Amino acid sequence: MTNSDKQNQLANAIRFLSMDAVEKANSGHPGLPMGAADIATTLYTRFLSHDPQNPHWPDRDRFVLSAGHGSMLLYSVLYLSGYEDITIDEIKKFRQIGARTAGHPEYGYAAGIETTTGPLGQGIANGVGMALSERILNAKFGDSIVDHYTYVLVGDGCLMEGISQEAIGLAGHLELNKLIVLWDDNNITIDGAVSLSDKTDQVARFQASGWNTSSVDGHDQEAIAKAIEQAKTSPKPTFIACKTVIGFGSPNKAGTNKVHGAALGAEEIAATRKALNWSAEPFVVPAEVLDAWRLAGLNAAKKRLEWEKRFAALDADTRAEFERRQRGELPIGFDQAIIDYKKKLSADKPKVATRKSSEMALEVINGIVPETIGGSADLTGSNNTKTSQTNAVTPENYDGRFVHYGIREHGMAAAMNGMALHGGLIPYSGTFMCFSDYCRPAMRLSSLMGIRVIYVMTHDSIGLGEDGPTHQPVEHLAVLRAIPNHLVFRPADAVEAAECWQLALESQKTPSTLALTRQNLPTVRTTHTDENLCGYGAYELAGTDQDAQVTLFATGSEIEIAMKAKAMLDEKNIPARVVSVPCFELFEQQSDSYKASVLGNAPVKIAIEAALSLGWERFIGENGVFIGMKGFGASAPIEDLYKHFGITAEAAVEAAEAKLKAAA
Amino acid sequence: MTNSDKQNQLANAIRFLSMDAVEKANSGHPGLPMGAADIATTLYTRFLSHDPQNPHWPDRDRFVLSAGHGSMLLYSVLYLSGYEDITIDEIKKFRQIGARTAGHPEYGYAAGIETTTGPLGQGIANGVGMALSERILNAKFGDSIVDHYTYVLVGDGCLMEGISQEAIGLAGHLELNKLIVLWDDNNITIDGAVSLSDKTDQVARFQASGWNTSSVDGHDQEAIAKAIEQAKTSPKPTFIACKTVIGFGSPNKAGTNKVHGAALGAEEIAATRKALNWSAEPFVVPAEVLDAWRLAGLNAAKKRLEWEKRFAALDADTRAEFERRQRGELPIGFDQAIIDYKKKLSADKPKVATRKSSEMALEVINGIVPETIGGSADLTGSNNTKTSQTNAVTPENYDGRFVHYGIREHGMAAAMNGMALHGGLIPYSGTFMCFSDYCRPAMRLSSLMGIRVIYVMTHDSIGLGEDGPTHQPVEHLAVLRAIPNHLVFRPADAVEAAECWQLALESQKTPSTLALTRQNLPTVRTTHTDENLCGYGAYELAGTDQDAQVTLFATGSEIEIAMKAKAMLDEKNIPARVVSVPCFELFEQQSDSYKASVLGNAPVKIAIEAALSLGWERFIGENGVFIGMKGFGASAPIEDLYKHFGITAEAAVEAAEAKLKAAA
Repeated sequence: MTNSDKQNQLANAIRFLSMDAVEKANSGHPGLPMGAADIATTLYTRFLSHDPQNPHWPDRDRFVLSAGHGSMLLYSVLYLSGYEDITIDEIKKFRQIGARTAGHPEYGYAAGIETTTGPLGQGIANGVGMALSERILNAKFGDSIVDHYTYVLVGDGCLMEGISQEAIGLAGHLELNKLIVLWDDNNITIDGAVSLSDKTDQVARFQASGWNTSSVDGHDQEAIAKAIEQAKTSPKPTFIACKTVIGFGSPNKAGTNKVHGAALGAEEIAATRKALNWSAEPFVVPAEVLDAWRLAGLNAAKKRLEWEKRFAALDADTRAEFERRQRGELPIGFDQAIIDYKKKLSADKPKVATRKSSEMALEVINGIVPETIGGSADLTGSNNTKTSQTNAVTPENYDGRFVHYGIREHGMAAAMNGMALHGGLIPYSGTFMCFSDYCRPAMRLSSLMGIRVIYVMTHDSIGLGEDGPTHQPVEHLAVLRAIPNHLVFRPADAVEAAECWQLALESQKTPSTLALTRQNLPTVRTTHTDENLCGYGAYELAGTDQDAQVTLFATGSEIEIAMKAKAMLDEKNIPARVVSVPCFELFEQQSDSYKASVLGNAPVKIAIEAALSLGWERFIGENGVFIGMKGFGASAPIEDLYKHFGITAEAAVEAAEAKLKAAA
Repeated sequence: MTNSDKQNQLANAIRFLSMDAVEKANSGHPGLPMGAADIATTLYTRFLSHDPQNPHWPDRDRFVLSAGHGSMLLYSVLYLSGYEDITIDEIKKFRQIGARTAGHPEYGYAAGIETTTGPLGQGIANGVGMALSERILNAKFGDSIVDHYTYVLVGDGCLMEGISQEAIGLAGHLELNKLIVLWDDNNITIDGAVSLSDKTDQVARFQASGWNTSSVDGHDQEAIAKAIEQAKTSPKPTFIACKTVIGFGSPNKAGTNKVHGAALGAEEIAATRKALNWSAEPFVVPAEVLDAWRLAGLNAAKKRLEWEKRFAALDADTRAEFERRQRGELPIGFDQAIIDYKKKLSADKPKVATRKSSEMALEVINGIVPETIGGSADLTGSNNTKTSQTNAVTPENYDGRFVHYGIREHGMAAAMNGMALHGGLIPYSGTFMCFSDYCRPAMRLSSLMGIRVIYVMTHDSIGLGEDGPTHQPVEHLAVLRAIPNHLVFRPADAVEAAECWQLALESQKTPSTLALTRQNLPTVRTTHTDENLCGYGAYELAGTDQDAQVTLFATGSEIEIAMKAKAMLDEKNIPARVVSVPCFELFEQQSDSYKASVLGNAPVKIAIEAALSLGWERFIGENGVFIGMKGFGASAPIEDLYKHFGITAEAAVEAAEAKLKAAA
């Protein structure tokens, strides 16, 4: 043990707050906070640029507790540092309903929680996104305004999860040298020793992906400090392996999986108090210890004052632009630009795939909104996410606006979460919709956190064609719509694509997915409206409810089929109307009367979507007809597939006639 | 170029078949088959133990094309080696409807396709599962019967995907020395050079996880052969980096991303024919070349004859056991054991969590079914997947029946796919249900392939309690039910848990998920039936439809609530019945009359499930009441959460009364 008594006491404050809170809740994870207390103490009292009184200061260092189950570590240091959101009462309410101190750190519950963690491996990828944002914004605004570090604390679990490799590879490639990852190397997982399931040399693994590395005693605060100092001089991202003892201080449980995820029990806590010479009552931090922590917080805050001065010295336009981005507001003129662009589309009537019309919309958007950062998981030419304004972000030049994420869908999604959380940027990027499955844990967190991340998911049905069932989404629209607080858009033409993009960008607290076709589609919105009709979620596209015998509900590529079916029905003197349903979630937010008017009174209701029926009951009821997929797709040219699976205007007409005959 | 002319011609046969097929389809990926042709030629003509005439021979070597987009490589070598399923006509029908030669290799379409690949990174993890199965079965049946290699061809995409790290880590830990991974190291991804997104030293990365490695010229068949020979002597799994040129042979496109995923065009193919001295017409393989390939196939097949002799020399019981496992049939006595066990449960009426009753059922099953291989992603004590029969599988002793997969949900799921595909074993393993999201791409492939993999997903609702919304599934039941050909079971008590396990094990062509509680539940099936009632998917648990005013549909933990609501309604003289719905998918398979009888005629229909409502319209219609979740969960003790979210018997009673009053 090489720490001074004071250093030990600072760290012990974390240990006892964590032990006591877990004990009171009789639930939680004391092992990590006890083991990583020296790391956190070193970081928060000697390195972290932050201001507990102004916790949202944009140029603060970010700290991500990737091993989110150690939440009491974070709550402890926030309380000790003087963050007002985390009082001692909150700590006493750990894991109780309504508390800011949830089981795992929940973004938005308290300042100082930079991201929601718990699902392992997400935090390190969030950290990569944050560190990337820092570099991109630094390139834009300069060292005096954007110049901070991102620290991530990871456990063995984070490093075993595959997403960590995607994050490590991306950070190494982009040489994100202001990213510093501290590994709580305690040799223990829930099941027991790490050696039960892994023998990876983590230091060598990080080196293989271009990282700077070091190894230290995780209970030697001076050694940790030296490693962080060294990290700051490296041109690469840094991985610091900190050898720790899980549950440090517990005489009978330290170093075992017994202390990972359960309260220690009164007896063992008493023994630990004795072992660590800690005489304070539960939830009491001795005044001199708390003072030292608070002083460290105050000292750190001085950097913010210096930053404020530098910021005030900027020209007014730069300040306004920086602040606008921080607020998450779009530039003035954005709406008008979309309206003008839609006007042009209604006149031009392009016949293009919606992945292409998405690109066309982005060409307009990226010209006006400088904070969008595009990307693709190595499908740039297929996802159409790169526009004329977006040069690649490279280690040599962070002043780009397009990230080649590599074949790393999951890491990409989680990095986008980090970028949105960082502030100042709006991330969007693409992959094939079928591979939204790879992104799913991160997409769920976008929704849970309520952040503006935009997922471009192209090749959204069997319309993908020959690549076959492994690449053809069938259940994915339903399962993405199932995520709470997630807007799933499926535009039918270039006008709807522009409107959906507008809505996605305007949804500050909700992530969006755009489901886009590979195949060309005609323009159906040929009459211009300033109003964003997709904002209703569903709207009458053709025909009227007054006389309709049949309502055809459809989305995206199947609008063309619905329109054709309507024309065929009209010819047979069966009046039909078509309702476009670009977004289920927005439709649900409309008034009951609007919803009733869109659902309409036609005796026959048919939904057409080249996907499974799940969720369509909402529109067509128990007696409606669903024309779509019943199982997996197949490998063949697109024309063959739509016929093979019976997703045609003819099938819709036949079904409508049969229904009408049965009712007659 | 160091190959002999003959070697070159053997490889060129792959190249031209691939080029010609892609050209005819005007769709596909010629780059990989052309670049990796020397690797495949070396492997198939000199190493692979297989018998094209008896392709399902159990002790064959397995070859997995993890980079599934290069499917023409596989179809070419299968045709050339003499597999009857892949004729030249099939190759001409590449990517057309009904062809065995789908866009990506589809398991079950043709012998020799060992797994479905395309979603990147899955194949290498499948290979780990296959190689693990080989070791486990070798430990059981001995070297004379089970002793083969697993070869995997991976591309850059497979290695960038996070799942590859999980697979690499697991294989390194388990020292799967009969696993040989060949890397088609061509420096090119779809977007361009690999350097656009990665600088990982892959060889160093594999070494860091305990692999044997080597690097060779991927166009030097002798060098590749030497590396494979060396690999066979290593006590570790081997990674061979084969430096290749993508689209090898194409004068103007080789070495670029232009040849990755598009037809070369007639002109370039002509130029390639000239460059490689290949004068044969499209789809024609010169007789001497085809003969050499076929001869290699015949030579390889000799090993099968030797094996047959060794197998015939075994004692009858061992032979019968081996063959039973190969057929995928359960041991005689299995059904009776389940019936006996259920009888005991109905009498004992245990009050345990279904994760515990799953363990109790497994204790019976694992005693009778020796081929089950359990596991957990480091949540063994929480998932309750380990029974008294299942010692850990370790590098020192493969004769175990439990795999500590580590914190690698995705790799675990994909490895289980590989184990099921290998044959001879029935894999099951667990994680928290919320983290089924991490497994999803592999779970979808279990379903697409139609294989018996059993996913144990515990902590299946807000009943998880304090860990909070990151760990509480709300949409997961719906999104798992959305996967085609996937049985999602949610048993309500120990009897249903036993029945669901029985059904999962008996479903040879369909994977299953068991959704299990953390919290204790009473036994509701207190009257014994030999019949497996869960096999109906839904059945009347209490009350009758004759007089019922209210039908309460529920699953799992909410059956207790439904039963309490029924009791409360009965007291108010409102007759109610309870329908247990352990499996939506099996219910859909019942006759219309059975389904109608279960749905019943009660005027009020209420579904109770601590999850989102999606999918329940099927049971309660448009006018039913759903009592469940509307969004994400929260961190708190379980009792508080059910009340907080209004999932209570009182809420059900209130809703029933309100509905009846409104209708009166």
